[in-house]
Amino acid sequence: MGDVIVSYNELISLCAKQLIKVGVPDKHAYTVAEVLVHADLRGVHSHGVLRTMHYVKRIKSGGINIRPQFKVDEKSPSVALFDGDDGLGHVVAKEAMQEAINRAKYQGIGMVGVINSSHCGALSYYVQMAAEQKMIGIALTHTDKVMVPFGGAKPYLGTNPIAFGVPAKKHKPIILDMATSEVAFGKVLHARNQGLSIPDRWGVDEQGNPTTDPHRVRALLPFGGPKGYGLALMIDVLSGILTGSAFGPHITAMYGDYDKKRKLGHLLIAIDISIFTTADNFLTHIDQMIDELHQVPPAPGFERVMVPGEPEQLKEEERLKKGIPITDVVYQELTSM
Amino acid sequence: MGDVIVSYNELISLCAKQLIKVGVPDKHAYTVAEVLVHADLRGVHSHGVLRTMHYVKRIKSGGINIRPQFKVDEKSPSVALFDGDDGLGHVVAKEAMQEAINRAKYQGIGMVGVINSSHCGALSYYVQMAAEQKMIGIALTHTDKVMVPFGGAKPYLGTNPIAFGVPAKKHKPIILDMATSEVAFGKVLHARNQGLSIPDRWGVDEQGNPTTDPHRVRALLPFGGPKGYGLALMIDVLSGILTGSAFGPHITAMYGDYDKKRKLGHLLIAIDISIFTTADNFLTHIDQMIDELHQVPPAPGFERVMVPGEPEQLKEEERLKKGIPITDVVYQELTSM
Repeated sequence: MGDVIVSYNELISLCAKQLIKVGVPDKHAYTVAEVLVHADLRGVHSHGVLRTMHYVKRIKSGGINIRPQFKVDEKSPSVALFDGDDGLGHVVAKEAMQEAINRAKYQGIGMVGVINSSHCGALSYYVQMAAEQKMIGIALTHTDKVMVPFGGAKPYLGTNPIAFGVPAKKHKPIILDMATSEVAFGKVLHARNQGLSIPDRWGVDEQGNPTTDPHRVRALLPFGGPKGYGLALMIDVLSGILTGSAFGPHITAMYGDYDKKRKLGHLLIAIDISIFTTADNFLTHIDQMIDELHQVPPAPGFERVMVPGEPEQLKEEERLKKGIPITDVVYQELTSM
Repeated sequence: MGDVIVSYNELISLCAKQLIKVGVPDKHAYTVAEVLVHADLRGVHSHGVLRTMHYVKRIKSGGINIRPQFKVDEKSPSVALFDGDDGLGHVVAKEAMQEAINRAKYQGIGMVGVINSSHCGALSYYVQMAAEQKMIGIALTHTDKVMVPFGGAKPYLGTNPIAFGVPAKKHKPIILDMATSEVAFGKVLHARNQGLSIPDRWGVDEQGNPTTDPHRVRALLPFGGPKGYGLALMIDVLSGILTGSAFGPHITAMYGDYDKKRKLGHLLIAIDISIFTTADNFLTHIDQMIDELHQVPPAPGFERVMVPGEPEQLKEEERLKKGIPITDVVYQELTSM
């Protein structure tokens, strides 16, 4: 199994075409492609174009509405509920984050709850949108159950990720995008395929015991024990229960029930960086913080201290120049007629 | 060294009197006492009355203004900047959270940035205030440097905590209050005193190597590696840089510089639980989530699955009935003339 190197533009085009082929309007197809290729550029292939055919399958089975009518229900000048009408989550989340940004421009903060969405890919995309418009972006979403609560033997929560985007002046924005599980399930599958053992903090077996055998993993563990569990729970409360969506084990599975609408909830927040001080003051201090962090002497075994999102940004720069490596399996899927 | 058992009312009174003795107005003294005893009730003694004489020392040295004039600067209907005028952080944060709650009642969300504050004790107090008023409360604050960034050998960040409070209907609110360091420095000191070794994920030595010897710890580690580091950084951005306060190593130390005003920043957020759905719908689903989590079979070694804040609430109930154990050293401090 080898890699194929594909340019940014070609990968966008290949991905969009597969979606257009099953009826997705051009504009939406290119938005989805942009969000997916954003992840591949950053090396987060688990959220990249390899998911294209998953969305295609869900569309074909009726689990995604390709011609959604979005509805924005204003709750206050700073708050709105965005109904995604079961559309592609990437398009829904992008529109909803723009709605939050627009409100933050006038109100200092914009908070948009999203209902009737579907898988929206890497949250880093949406918080980066905010950062590019000189806003702090915060995005969170629940996902279907795969993770045990702290002290539990069976899964109840999803890997419920949260992301933050913070603009800088001379530096690239700080982008933190993290699941609340220790790792993604894909890492466990990868270890299975490679015949490797795994650290015992990744997942538990049938009985709820931590295991180093990837074949015995039945559920993931939250990162950082009770703290990661607590955060995962709060993310489900804020994106699920608060918006009026499902929660925990009641969320429609990503892989399975392909004919069912997923009806996911997200929460998207934008905060104006000049709300309390000036934009220049904020940006200058972020730059200073990044510079100072770079100057912290590295611990043994580390080359240097980086800020969140920096390794991914370095990869992105390189791949925009040299192309993006895609497995030949995925390349064949994307180029299939 | 033994413990003295003190009733809730007596402890409040003892603590308040020490503050009143150095000139703190009665109302403020009782607010501080209430926040501190709240922590002792919950078993979080590190944030309890044992800090009383620390605040007294800071007041005597001029590092806290005991007669602050608070100023609320409205930035939009949902956002305000609260200037604590270098007052006691507990009083400042309580007033500021009430300001956020008031705004959330009319705007769905209230966000209050706080400047010129000082150490405000356990954040759980403020998010519980919100939960008791049927709001989701979120509180975050930076603290002075004691923690390495991920991959760093020297401290740059504080233990920057974040707390969430979520109201329920028949259950007590879910209260998550967590530092972004793996443990508090107090735990390292405790291990030193007891001659115990510590897990190697708690802290690093002079060279930045993880150590199991508490005497060699020179800085704490973030919980969960890069994720805890990322969160700690975001908390400093949101409570420090966004509000126009200091950040990272530029924050005045808690223990030291007793004559300097600390000028801490906090961020307090309240969200109306009925903004997107009905309050009853929200509360019923939170109850359901708590009930379902209680029904998740426990992993080997665990008695049962709990929700964040539950162990502390059980302790609180017991201590309200039977009294609060305080070390005799602290009891003597509090009863000294």
